[in-house]
Amino acid sequence: MSFLLNPNGQTKFKRTGYHIAKGKSRTMKYFLYFIWLFLTAFMPKQKPLRVIFFGDSITEAGAKPGGYIMRISDALKAKGLSGKYDLIGAGIGGNKVYDLYLRMDDDVLAKNPDIVFIWIGVNDVWHKTLTGTGTDADKFEKFYTAIIQKLKARSTRIILCTPAAIGEKTDCTNQQDGDLNKYAGVIRNLSYRYHCELVDFRKIFQQYSLQNNPENKESGVLTMDRVHLNERGNQLAADKMLEQLLK
Amino acid sequence: MSFLLNPNGQTKFKRTGYHIAKGKSRTMKYFLYFIWLFLTAFMPKQKPLRVIFFGDSITEAGAKPGGYIMRISDALKAKGLSGKYDLIGAGIGGNKVYDLYLRMDDDVLAKNPDIVFIWIGVNDVWHKTLTGTGTDADKFEKFYTAIIQKLKARSTRIILCTPAAIGEKTDCTNQQDGDLNKYAGVIRNLSYRYHCELVDFRKIFQQYSLQNNPENKESGVLTMDRVHLNERGNQLAADKMLEQLLK
Amino acid sequence: MSFLLNPNGQTKFKRTGYHIAKGKSRTMKYFLYFIWLFLTAFMPKQKPLRVIFFGDSITEAGAKPGGYIMRISDALKAKGLSGKYDLIGAGIGGNKVYDLYLRMDDDVLAKNPDIVFIWIGVNDVWHKTLTGTGTDADKFEKFYTAIIQKLKARSTRIILCTPAAIGEKTDCTNQQDGDLNKYAGVIRNLSYRYHCELVDFRKIFQQYSLQNNPENKESGVLTMDRVHLNERGNQLAADKMLEQLLK
Amino acid sequence: MSFLLNPNGQTKFKRTGYHIAKGKSRTMKYFLYFIWLFLTAFMPKQKPLRVIFFGDSITEAGAKPGGYIMRISDALKAKGLSGKYDLIGAGIGGNKVYDLYLRMDDDVLAKNPDIVFIWIGVNDVWHKTLTGTGTDADKFEKFYTAIIQKLKARSTRIILCTPAAIGEKTDCTNQQDGDLNKYAGVIRNLSYRYHCELVDFRKIFQQYSLQNNPENKESGVLTMDRVHLNERGNQLAADKMLEQLLK
Repeated sequence: MSFLLNPNGQTKFKRTGYHIAKGKSRTMKYFLYFIWLFLTAFMPKQKPLRVIFFGDSITEAGAKPGGYIMRISDALKAKGLSGKYDLIGAGIGGNKVYDLYLRMDDDVLAKNPDIVFIWIGVNDVWHKTLTGTGTDADKFEKFYTAIIQKLKARSTRIILCTPAAIGEKTDCTNQQDGDLNKYAGVIRNLSYRYHCELVDFRKIFQQYSLQNNPENKESGVLTMDRVHLNERGNQLAADKMLEQLLK
Repeated sequence: MSFLLNPNGQTKFKRTGYHIAKGKSRTMKYFLYFIWLFLTAFMPKQKPLRVIFFGDSITEAGAKPGGYIMRISDALKAKGLSGKYDLIGAGIGGNKVYDLYLRMDDDVLAKNPDIVFIWIGVNDVWHKTLTGTGTDADKFEKFYTAIIQKLKARSTRIILCTPAAIGEKTDCTNQQDGDLNKYAGVIRNLSYRYHCELVDFRKIFQQYSLQNNPENKESGVLTMDRVHLNERGNQLAADKMLEQLLK
Repeated sequence: MSFLLNPNGQTKFKRTGYHIAKGKSRTMKYFLYFIWLFLTAFMPKQKPLRVIFFGDSITEAGAKPGGYIMRISDALKAKGLSGKYDLIGAGIGGNKVYDLYLRMDDDVLAKNPDIVFIWIGVNDVWHKTLTGTGTDADKFEKFYTAIIQKLKARSTRIILCTPAAIGEKTDCTNQQDGDLNKYAGVIRNLSYRYHCELVDFRKIFQQYSLQNNPENKESGVLTMDRVHLNERGNQLAADKMLEQLLK
Repeated sequence: MSFLLNPNGQTKFKRTGYHIAKGKSRTMKYFLYFIWLFLTAFMPKQKPLRVIFFGDSITEAGAKPGGYIMRISDALKAKGLSGKYDLIGAGIGGNKVYDLYLRMDDDVLAKNPDIVFIWIGVNDVWHKTLTGTGTDADKFEKFYTAIIQKLKARSTRIILCTPAAIGEKTDCTNQQDGDLNKYAGVIRNLSYRYHCELVDFRKIFQQYSLQNNPENKESGVLTMDRVHLNERGNQLAADKMLEQLLK
């Protein structure tokens, strides 16, 4: 813990100082102060924890004003924790799991993160009909596993996120609901098998929609267009990721 | 009901005859017999109702030994109703709704059916990823509507069936669950809008699997291969269609 | 032929008149002129030929300023033939062959066209990977045939057009080249079998690109975006369709 | 070259021996024999070159009787070269380029090959419509490059093969012709950029079909089913790969 960044610690020290120095001259006070200065000067100043958000267009937008990463940053500031975390967005539109794999050396490992949020999967499912180049479920698992193992090898704290939605209807009638549930299941299993933390956005979004989408709308609840987050979606994502980050 | 085809009716008549003719000469017996012959000769002999099962590979298999159409036929025989219905299978593997539309003149209308079961939809969804030639939901509705209207114009009794399954997992993780639910919903709406009868196989199969598939298996409950019916599936289909037919 | 619309005919008539009236007084000239006026007054004024352009987004854009239909209209005006033809755009973005079939009663037959250009096929191929809802080649042929037969039944002059391009590379490396060639071949066969006229845009565009696309560019030659026509593309389409129209 | 494996060499030596030893005692003969033994004992016995064929179902079938790998083996035997090469099939049905990437450590690198044939690409294109999980062209290139680089790092001799065919029609009307040509082009560029040898099966098969498929058949020329090799196809593949191997 950095003394400079922790006003409580500093205050406490001063009080202790006063207590010790009770009734003594100002000389004693200065003496103690210099000792403190001397000690802190050689204490390693603690670096903020580097957090990388690794994902697709949802994360790319998350790093823009109003995006979920910006909201996490704001919330940390409000809690007086902004100096403790260094947030980095690493989202690229259209990315599938193997895109993350292919660019993880450059975009993640080279930056030596302490914590990595992985939020991927929507395009692996969606591109099956959009371009004919989705990802088979078993390959999805293999590349996801390879990403986890590379991060584990460096003792990075890993937080997996399940894909939230392609359509917000609540009665399992969004075209990709079955497939998206399946891929979310793959990620849940990986989090269990490799002891990774999990933010289960698939469940979070479905529960939110069940309570807040009585008209069974396809979009406009947490997304703008069935996939990309609107203001409420970004806030919900920020809340849940921050909660997990601070656990 | 045709007397000639109903031996019970005939027997009953004879007995009644004997009762009336008790102690009378054979002349009386012959006299009554001729009256009966005379009456039945001018009674319109009732033709069996022609029932066409219009669909895809599930229906094509349904007309083979062990198939659901054969089981309906057997059940009618057991009920002594086999003379009342003339069952015709008109299923072709790989068919989508517009295949039905394209061949309905030859395969349905030309045969003047009294009743038509329409069971289509699996390939309209499945072929989206299998060949890239599935059917858009709005076109599915348009062609289905056109089929209904052509049959309505001839006052045919129409019984719509929703597609049963592409995968039997119970937790909405079969790849096409969302899409299949959507297309089943289109058919439900059409049955409501055009006052057609409905056998909601999508619901029937889902409920059956919820109760009988505790291991969340992908196939082997009512299907052999996620789509095509096994023995239990054919029996369940036969039961539900017969129930609707006799309503 | 309407005299009013055919200045050559008028001139010829006048000359004949002069010939007959040679050396006669102006009275004779006026007399003949009144006879001509009298005759034409009771001649049925010939209605312009109604031409419908039936297609997808390419045709939808064709009816807008700069589009190929507007260019045909301008060319007819320049030739003094604008009164002879009534051009109607009937293109809707995203249409496939069965969309044309489904809306042909309302959008074509109800308007009693004399001539119909059919230009469809790009989406039947393209949507195989774009939405998973392309059209199987055999169904493409069936619906196209049904459209031709409905028009033939009314003795409409039919001009088929093959789909031009999805990508303009000249070495058969555009993703859909093989499939698009196949569907163009289906249309060529139909034009042969049903004695329909043909504007073979597939060949026309490929030949143009071979001569004018030395850099093997994917777009920017006759299209803006691999599919939709730029200025040159609209002009080429207009030229070829007008040439066929006036044959 | 190992003397033990080369009887010609041995024979030659003996003759030389006899020539020198003419009229001498058996002692001299034994003396020379021991010298030969001594010399060969310290000569490194040359191991056969390990050749791995790395690919999909075409290569999986290639390792079976009648397959192209067996035919290469037979041809080497006929040339008296069977001891020089150790042929290993490493083909798995359905494999795409990233399947090769994922299993190359186990199936290729662990076996320390001297030479690797890479023959992949058909499924990367084909699966776009078959399962919706084909490979984007740019990712195809990235994974292919990664495979090349891993092999280059070990100084393995690499021979790239372009995908041969999905359909054998000669007029660019096979559905995937455009896409397959594109992916073959990617491989040609990689062979150029990374100085890898190339067996351009795409060109070889197209040229063969142009000369031997006058009826423009879809299959039956070099393939059984548009993709998998028949007898002639396996022989042609064997001939071309052997030719390249022995260069």
